[in-house]
Amino acid sequence: MSVFDVVFGKPLATSAEHDEHIGVAAGIPIFGLDGLTSAAYGPEAAMQLLVPLGIAGVSAYLLPVFSCILVLLAIVYLSYRQTIEAYPNGGGSYTVASENLGDGAGLLAAAALMIDYILTAAVGISAGVTALVSASDGTRISHTMHHYQLAFCLLILIIIATVNMRGMKESGFAFMLPTFIFVGTLVTTIAWAAYQYWATGGHPVAVAPPPPPEVGVSTFTKVGLVWLLMKTFASGCAAMTGVEAVSNGVTAFREPRAKKANQTLTIIIGMLIVMLYGLSWVAKIYHVTAMNPDAHNYQNVLSIEVAAVFGRGWFYFLTMGGVLAALSFSANTAFADFPRMARAIALRDYLPHVFILRGRRLLFSHGIYALTGFTALILIIFNGVTDRLIPLYAIGAFLAFTLSQAGMVVHWLHTKDAKHRFVKLFFNGLGAVATGITLIVVLVAKFTSGAWVTALLVPFLIIIMTTIKRHYRRVKLETADPTPLRLSGLEDPIVIIPMARWDKISEKAMRFGLLMSETVKVVHIHGDEQDALGCVWDKMVADPVREANRTLPELITVSSNYRTILSPLMDYILKLEDENPGRKIAVLLPELVVRHWWENLLHNQRVQILKLLLLLKGNQRIVVVNIPWYL
Amino acid sequence: MSVFDVVFGKPLATSAEHDEHIGVAAGIPIFGLDGLTSAAYGPEAAMQLLVPLGIAGVSAYLLPVFSCILVLLAIVYLSYRQTIEAYPNGGGSYTVASENLGDGAGLLAAAALMIDYILTAAVGISAGVTALVSASDGTRISHTMHHYQLAFCLLILIIIATVNMRGMKESGFAFMLPTFIFVGTLVTTIAWAAYQYWATGGHPVAVAPPPPPEVGVSTFTKVGLVWLLMKTFASGCAAMTGVEAVSNGVTAFREPRAKKANQTLTIIIGMLIVMLYGLSWVAKIYHVTAMNPDAHNYQNVLSIEVAAVFGRGWFYFLTMGGVLAALSFSANTAFADFPRMARAIALRDYLPHVFILRGRRLLFSHGIYALTGFTALILIIFNGVTDRLIPLYAIGAFLAFTLSQAGMVVHWLHTKDAKHRFVKLFFNGLGAVATGITLIVVLVAKFTSGAWVTALLVPFLIIIMTTIKRHYRRVKLETADPTPLRLSGLEDPIVIIPMARWDKISEKAMRFGLLMSETVKVVHIHGDEQDALGCVWDKMVADPVREANRTLPELITVSSNYRTILSPLMDYILKLEDENPGRKIAVLLPELVVRHWWENLLHNQRVQILKLLLLLKGNQRIVVVNIPWYL
Repeated sequence: MSVFDVVFGKPLATSAEHDEHIGVAAGIPIFGLDGLTSAAYGPEAAMQLLVPLGIAGVSAYLLPVFSCILVLLAIVYLSYRQTIEAYPNGGGSYTVASENLGDGAGLLAAAALMIDYILTAAVGISAGVTALVSASDGTRISHTMHHYQLAFCLLILIIIATVNMRGMKESGFAFMLPTFIFVGTLVTTIAWAAYQYWATGGHPVAVAPPPPPEVGVSTFTKVGLVWLLMKTFASGCAAMTGVEAVSNGVTAFREPRAKKANQTLTIIIGMLIVMLYGLSWVAKIYHVTAMNPDAHNYQNVLSIEVAAVFGRGWFYFLTMGGVLAALSFSANTAFADFPRMARAIALRDYLPHVFILRGRRLLFSHGIYALTGFTALILIIFNGVTDRLIPLYAIGAFLAFTLSQAGMVVHWLHTKDAKHRFVKLFFNGLGAVATGITLIVVLVAKFTSGAWVTALLVPFLIIIMTTIKRHYRRVKLETADPTPLRLSGLEDPIVIIPMARWDKISEKAMRFGLLMSETVKVVHIHGDEQDALGCVWDKMVADPVREANRTLPELITVSSNYRTILSPLMDYILKLEDENPGRKIAVLLPELVVRHWWENLLHNQRVQILKLLLLLKGNQRIVVVNIPWYL
Repeated sequence: MSVFDVVFGKPLATSAEHDEHIGVAAGIPIFGLDGLTSAAYGPEAAMQLLVPLGIAGVSAYLLPVFSCILVLLAIVYLSYRQTIEAYPNGGGSYTVASENLGDGAGLLAAAALMIDYILTAAVGISAGVTALVSASDGTRISHTMHHYQLAFCLLILIIIATVNMRGMKESGFAFMLPTFIFVGTLVTTIAWAAYQYWATGGHPVAVAPPPPPEVGVSTFTKVGLVWLLMKTFASGCAAMTGVEAVSNGVTAFREPRAKKANQTLTIIIGMLIVMLYGLSWVAKIYHVTAMNPDAHNYQNVLSIEVAAVFGRGWFYFLTMGGVLAALSFSANTAFADFPRMARAIALRDYLPHVFILRGRRLLFSHGIYALTGFTALILIIFNGVTDRLIPLYAIGAFLAFTLSQAGMVVHWLHTKDAKHRFVKLFFNGLGAVATGITLIVVLVAKFTSGAWVTALLVPFLIIIMTTIKRHYRRVKLETADPTPLRLSGLEDPIVIIPMARWDKISEKAMRFGLLMSETVKVVHIHGDEQDALGCVWDKMVADPVREANRTLPELITVSSNYRTILSPLMDYILKLEDENPGRKIAVLLPELVVRHWWENLLHNQRVQILKLLLLLKGNQRIVVVNIPWYL
């Protein structure tokens, strides 16, 4: 077994596909990590905006805002359940939108989701690493850790990519433990806080008291307050990204696919709702406010909450460790979905066809390569610090949600025989309207802080995809051949053999040329040196051919004033082609094949350049025959 | 006229060669700059070693040491005059040594000179730039200048390489002015010092007094003193490098070549002797000692001398500017000689044959590329500071001198009818002995300070050159064909056409295949998708072929368990080749040629990989035919 096999797993036969399908237990870490980890940063994102309102603001508005978000989440959940049932062969937003709303809407969804997935991967990894690096602040290794931030990010990217190259199933197992610790510790925290609340009659005492609010309470006009709450809502919606992941990956599940996928989705959403609502509630009862991220003793809300409930003991560190791991590996969801989506898009000719191919482990490997490449690019450009990209990707997610739900509405309108058709229509319609409104809110609230980048990128990606489609359509049109093989007009080609001297390589080419055609033209480019070929031509070539009563090959000697070989040769070939319309030209290129790579340095690479020139400047009638000579 | 033509000059026809030949005026800067600029650092190198003896040491020993050097120079000059006359087609050390002493001695000279030329180029440029950068010390731009030292070096390298790419003649004109200023100002300085010496009755007063000797006078034993003087002599011999340059470049001169070359050599050596002796004498009469190069107010001997004679006025700065320019451009001599020598070596198969080709400006362009590359490499490795390389290259030069003179001795022994044969024999013999002794002195004196590197590099280069020769000999042996074309056993090849589907590209390949042979095998690699080709085979291919009463092509369907296309295809081809000994296999590769480079990303590059695999794993009987299809 090679090292390659050890790292990436042995190749899997196509017939082994069945064994690679996953169940609910593997589905949760694979498709859920992205959504679940939203609980770690969603409340924080919303609470940052409530800071000017002080503790009273958190008490008064945090739970209502998150209730809105959870209602929206529930609607989206119900909508996606229906999508999964209706599209058991994979109902990603792209598929649903393009099948029901047309190619345009499909491309819009595709562009939005491509941006979303790439950013999810980059931001997830970067968030985990940032948390890890921050944890070292104040210690002796802090400087080193900051220095290697990007290196850590790329290392985690490579780990995730490698695990994913091994296959769906393996990545499910690999990321199960971090997911379990993440969810387990947070739910335990919430449960213990609830018990304390009950035990103390509604006034629990923080073990490690939260820091006091840093800024004074500002007053707001009514409009100002509404705008603030809208922005809070928009920020909190970051917690909803990743919900569409399961619907896109239905085909990864064992049969009954749709059922397994829906069970997975239900568990993920259930856990997410518990965590989001629970953590908001803990913030309220422990009077937690968000801290200014630039403060020197900054802690995030999650850290303050866990410390308040349990103090800074081993459980605190276990929880924080779980958060770190889960965040870093949340990129895995993008790795599960992006290749599937890219394949769906490529099947409709809007992306390169390599995305359709399945690699040695039955995965769409090129999707993994592409995602890894783009993610690495973004991490490198932003040097591993991607906080500023967060506003960008909620847009992508909500655009995809809206198009998917709207597509489902059209689907139910056309599917006249579905059971409970109008109930389904209602839920998908509600989902479409709700996510559509949210999209507008997020776009408006976040436009200046980065959402405009997405607004520019989406049309750019759509242009690329339509250009690709146009290319494939043209190739198909030009090469499609609905007629049987024509056998008329099969005329021998004119054979051209460039020859510098008479040797075994030349002889081999001559023999092959005489086999191919009666018309053989040997071209000798003649610089300022002696005409070595002309001297021996009669003896070596002409005489034996005459004796055998065959048509004599023609020797054409071209003198080269500027000592170049290739351009007079190309000129001659193109001229001959021009003078013989309708005839094929076969250029025979004798080529020396050396044993070691370095030996190529000792021979001019004219044959290689000539091949390239013939390919670039040639046309349908010019064919190149390589006659290799092995030393 | 393209930008390329403006920068590098228009291509020159082979017939224009005559016009590119140079005269004496251009020959001096081209072949003389390296030798002449030795005057700028030769005395300094020697005087650095005399520092422990104080002013008295300079007075007592500097002129005697330089007298020895000048006698040696005169002997070498006379020897090279004779070499030029005897070898009017270029009498570089390599040619003379290999023609008279055998290939081994020739390779030794070649290796020594290659090292010498590359180091000359790097050290020359670096010395000029170091002087320029030092000139800025203490000013505000000093830091910036030091920062960009390497960039300056590479810039000058590019300028020299570009000028050289334009041709011999142009580089002669380009470097004439710096040479003129360099020689003119130094000779003026010496003449004015001589006048002052005369006018003051032997006690000239320095305008800007030289700094006092920095270290106290040490006492030496007799052996110690001899060893010190030997080292002084060895260091001063650095002033003799570059003397062989003219002999190597005789073919660059107009007819009568040998005469023009000898005139050039005479003028160069004459000027060099005047400058070397003159500057040593000026040092003596103005009581100049060398300064410690690490001293914060370090000035080199030349600067101290010019300041002593003329003060720090405009003439001082003109002189220093001339020195800077001449030093920087002294690399030009290497550019004139290295390509000629590389050609001579390549003609004997010891270097890649590209060095024989003449480029668009009738130069041996690849020699210029190689020299530029190696020089840049050395400059980059040493970050533009190459002082430590100076000891290395005197070895190369003296090794070459010795071999060349010894070769000439053998030459005269064999040339029985030469005029004044014994006089010539005497001078060359004297030269060989003198330079041989000097070589040993330099090697011993400089061994620990770097000469050992040369001693290691020389055998390494010789091994490379003999390996190259062995390769060329093997190729020649294996491909040489002294027999006429054999026409027996011309049997149609087996044609293999890999085919994925039936389209116009496949049809074109089929038609060409049927032309080439009766035995056509179409190979269809079949993964998990539908067998698209099998369905249409009868209708599209088999039926029309049957109707035309031709041999039916065979359709071979190979199933691929692991979704790979190339490896089952290669397996099939190699198996078929194995089963049909004696028959040729022609693999027809239909290939889509796109219009824009980016379109290649949309098509898998299997054909390209297959071509490479066939070339690497194929053998004499497998021929590849590219059937391009242009969109």
